Amino acid sequence: MTQKKTRLRVIPLGGLDEIGKNMTVLEYGNDMVVIDAGIMFPDEDHPGVDLILPDYSYIVHRKEKLRAIVITHGHEDHTGALPYLLKEVGTTVPILGTKLTLGLIAGKLEEHRIKKPKLREIRAGGHVNIGPFGFDFIPVNHSIPDGVALFIRTPVGNILHTGDFKLDQTPIDGRLTDYGAIASAGKKGVRLLMSDSTNAESVGITKSEATVGAALRDIFDSAEQRIIVASFASHIHRIQQVCDAAVAAGRKVVVTGRSMVNNTKIARQLGYLKIAEDDLLDAYSMGDLPPEKVVVLSTGSQGEPLSALARMANHDHRTVTIEAGDTVVISATPIPGNEKAVSRVINRLSRAGATIVHKGTAPVHVSGHAAAEELKLMLNLVKPECFVPIHGESRHLTAHAELAKLTGVADENIFVLATGDCLEISEDSVRIAERVESGVVYVDGLSVGDIGHLVIRDRQLLARDGVATVIVAIDRRTGQPTGTPELVTRGLSLGADDSTLMDEARARIAKTLTKTAREGATDSVVIQNAVRESLSQFMWEKTRSRPMIVPVVMEV
Amino acid sequence: MTQKKTRLRVIPLGGLDEIGKNMTVLEYGNDMVVIDAGIMFPDEDHPGVDLILPDYSYIVHRKEKLRAIVITHGHEDHTGALPYLLKEVGTTVPILGTKLTLGLIAGKLEEHRIKKPKLREIRAGGHVNIGPFGFDFIPVNHSIPDGVALFIRTPVGNILHTGDFKLDQTPIDGRLTDYGAIASAGKKGVRLLMSDSTNAESVGITKSEATVGAALRDIFDSAEQRIIVASFASHIHRIQQVCDAAVAAGRKVVVTGRSMVNNTKIARQLGYLKIAEDDLLDAYSMGDLPPEKVVVLSTGSQGEPLSALARMANHDHRTVTIEAGDTVVISATPIPGNEKAVSRVINRLSRAGATIVHKGTAPVHVSGHAAAEELKLMLNLVKPECFVPIHGESRHLTAHAELAKLTGVADENIFVLATGDCLEISEDSVRIAERVESGVVYVDGLSVGDIGHLVIRDRQLLARDGVATVIVAIDRRTGQPTGTPELVTRGLSLGADDSTLMDEARARIAKTLTKTAREGATDSVVIQNAVRESLSQFMWEKTRSRPMIVPVVMEV
Repeated sequence: MTQKKTRLRVIPLGGLDEIGKNMTVLEYGNDMVVIDAGIMFPDEDHPGVDLILPDYSYIVHRKEKLRAIVITHGHEDHTGALPYLLKEVGTTVPILGTKLTLGLIAGKLEEHRIKKPKLREIRAGGHVNIGPFGFDFIPVNHSIPDGVALFIRTPVGNILHTGDFKLDQTPIDGRLTDYGAIASAGKKGVRLLMSDSTNAESVGITKSEATVGAALRDIFDSAEQRIIVASFASHIHRIQQVCDAAVAAGRKVVVTGRSMVNNTKIARQLGYLKIAEDDLLDAYSMGDLPPEKVVVLSTGSQGEPLSALARMANHDHRTVTIEAGDTVVISATPIPGNEKAVSRVINRLSRAGATIVHKGTAPVHVSGHAAAEELKLMLNLVKPECFVPIHGESRHLTAHAELAKLTGVADENIFVLATGDCLEISEDSVRIAERVESGVVYVDGLSVGDIGHLVIRDRQLLARDGVATVIVAIDRRTGQPTGTPELVTRGLSLGADDSTLMDEARARIAKTLTKTAREGATDSVVIQNAVRESLSQFMWEKTRSRPMIVPVVMEV
Repeated sequence: MTQKKTRLRVIPLGGLDEIGKNMTVLEYGNDMVVIDAGIMFPDEDHPGVDLILPDYSYIVHRKEKLRAIVITHGHEDHTGALPYLLKEVGTTVPILGTKLTLGLIAGKLEEHRIKKPKLREIRAGGHVNIGPFGFDFIPVNHSIPDGVALFIRTPVGNILHTGDFKLDQTPIDGRLTDYGAIASAGKKGVRLLMSDSTNAESVGITKSEATVGAALRDIFDSAEQRIIVASFASHIHRIQQVCDAAVAAGRKVVVTGRSMVNNTKIARQLGYLKIAEDDLLDAYSMGDLPPEKVVVLSTGSQGEPLSALARMANHDHRTVTIEAGDTVVISATPIPGNEKAVSRVINRLSRAGATIVHKGTAPVHVSGHAAAEELKLMLNLVKPECFVPIHGESRHLTAHAELAKLTGVADENIFVLATGDCLEISEDSVRIAERVESGVVYVDGLSVGDIGHLVIRDRQLLARDGVATVIVAIDRRTGQPTGTPELVTRGLSLGADDSTLMDEARARIAKTLTKTAREGATDSVVIQNAVRESLSQFMWEKTRSRPMIVPVVMEV
């Protein structure tokens, strides 16, 4: 009698061939653990969408198996889907993370009015058993403090999941990536390495966060008026370096922007940000501090139009106005897709007379992700049997797969997966099994998942050529039109006052209606289609555009 | 008796605080010359727009004064508005340019069916008198051959307009920027220097185009299968280097993409591209050449979704399909705003198994614009009295102004202008005069200038939250509603099948109509406004979105 052995299923529900919404399922028999639960930020391909979640139906349908959600670090592309996921799977599932990670999550869940989540603090270097899995938490460096990699013992062998990481030899908080723990994991034997691919295309190594501090001190030394620094609100090490440079230059730090105010508060409370009470001010209580005594620490490094920095640039901030001679440091890099928005803010600041310092003109930013040489070192420390590159677009995953090959991972053991792929691992084999339900869920206003690709497509069409609504009244018995058709347009490529063309369009529709009536059509769908086609053709002939046509047939 | 002296008016109608649509007017008494007539490419802020032209009403209103249009080089941001401008000012105005510049323009005008334009070839190093102006044409390097700077003698002093330039010490065609002519202009005295600011933020110097050739040869040497190179179709020197490297590697060059086919043809005919007939093939006549004997030269370096490269990546190209092991070289840099589109194509190519080489991984692209050290050299050669930075966003213009200050141009003689500003120069003064009519003109399908900011704004609103059309029938005497309101929506954040919400919305509108009827409203504008407000409020309450509401009142 052969008994079917249980297989471990590893299923990335996000983060592959995309940047963001990182989420991976580990499933073994009746037990399931989810690693990370992130969101993705929409771009111009998703008009009007507020947020993008991974489609986690696979988890919701098996929620009775869900033992825990383990979070590697506190960035929103790893934590942002938690409020939505918890609404579906309930708040009794434990959420494991380090102190800062949980501190940031707690704030987010509170905003969403999620009561009594089971937040379970883990210690980097610690160990936790969850069902059939044993988790070791390994400290790693990243652009947020307190990140961990996961060494996971499973019944079919060990997995190492790096989370997001870099290898910083001079980290701001002195907390090194634990090379010993990674090497020892490698010694124990790792069947599967899942490693961060974001910077796999970058040659060499990513510079230490400490190099930014030196650049900031130089800039602060020579600035004569106000200094404004914009950065990511979660980048506590960057914020620490801004604070240190400010205090060294005899300036107070003024914090502005909602997330910057919240995060500095949480980070100080939990001991991750060290600055004297006296040296830190709210933008509304800065009083009449002279410009040369101030460093403003601000949100808006991505060019967000409603951020504190954009408001300053637009003379729309309540207490800070950019003046000629001010120095603005953009201590960040634009996330792909935000380049133009950032440039727009820089242009506004230039016009206001500020001196702008950014990554292109001074070393005021470094990445939080490992570059090729660090990724190879990770591969060589771990010496995995199998490799799955995670966290990246196809180009990054493919580049990372190349690096794995160079370090000696066998070609057939490198799996470049897509979101929703399922890797099945048994004691003696690793194979790609059937894909699971996966994809994107749009959050738009109060609606979660109601709008789909069709609505997005409609919005794109509306944006391209506008909309023309035609209202025709039809005698319900004869199909004969009564009165002239109404035509209402928005966003069309004809001018609003092109009344001749509108008259011609009405005449064309009327002619179509006469024809359908003559043919005996009384069904409103038939009439709608005829009207749509006729107007669409008319618009193409006259304007070479294809507005969305919305025909409304009123039977009277 | 004092006689009012004629002043020279220098008016940039585009290219300031924007990249593209470069155009400058020189006006002196009854004579006017226009330098360049470019377009700008629309981005996601201009949904559905095909092209953006400068608003050149100022020229059209004074067309009887227009003596010539002088074009510095053949890029579309310097030539693309010509077909539209000529339709307004007539084809009798001479267009001056070098041979290649005119060759490219001739093709463009033919497409627009503009008959018998007066194209007047100039020779770099040559001289032409136009009304009160004397033009000397000075060879400069750029990312297209045959570019010139303009040394212009005017009754109030000399102007030097650099066009777009870099200082390449080893240009592909051996044609150096004429340092002697620039120095001699400086010696004669230059009242006003107008200089290219695109790369004013970049430190150091821009690398020679020749460095790209070395990188291409290395890549071609090690590639084992097909090589595809995507670049700008107008970058003839780049194309020359691709051809040379291909021939050296024993490969034929296969050209694909409409503009690449057209431009290589024109450039060969005019003697700017040198490759044997035998070594150059059309994509449709490549027959069964083995992959290792081919270099495909393609459009699509900006990620354009319909380009040859995108088609290859999508398995949608008629003769070339990307196969695992192919090498794709993106020999270009994404124009700001195109980053995501380029990345999308790279991801598709990665998934198809190609090795991708781009600027981030090998030195396969250099800029065509001078960096800070070159700009300072230009300033020091010319030693102008006054300086106007041109061709750039505010950040670039401001950075260039700083460089001018460093080289000793007096602060009060540096004019950071905006599009539409007018600089008036007399024998003894230079001052900013009243602004002239200027701005953007949208080309959308067949419409030129019909759509304005309101239409664009409508499209943005439509894209964000969709549109809801409400049709209500009203008794024309009583104002009483007859029947139930019709509600048709597109792109809303409620699902298409959220029929309960739609029913509630109809009920809310009906209630509003009862109220307006009770209040005796019969005016359809009053009823429309009431309906709009009520539905808008309903949608905000229920979905936290603000679709565009189009109320239609039918009086029956």
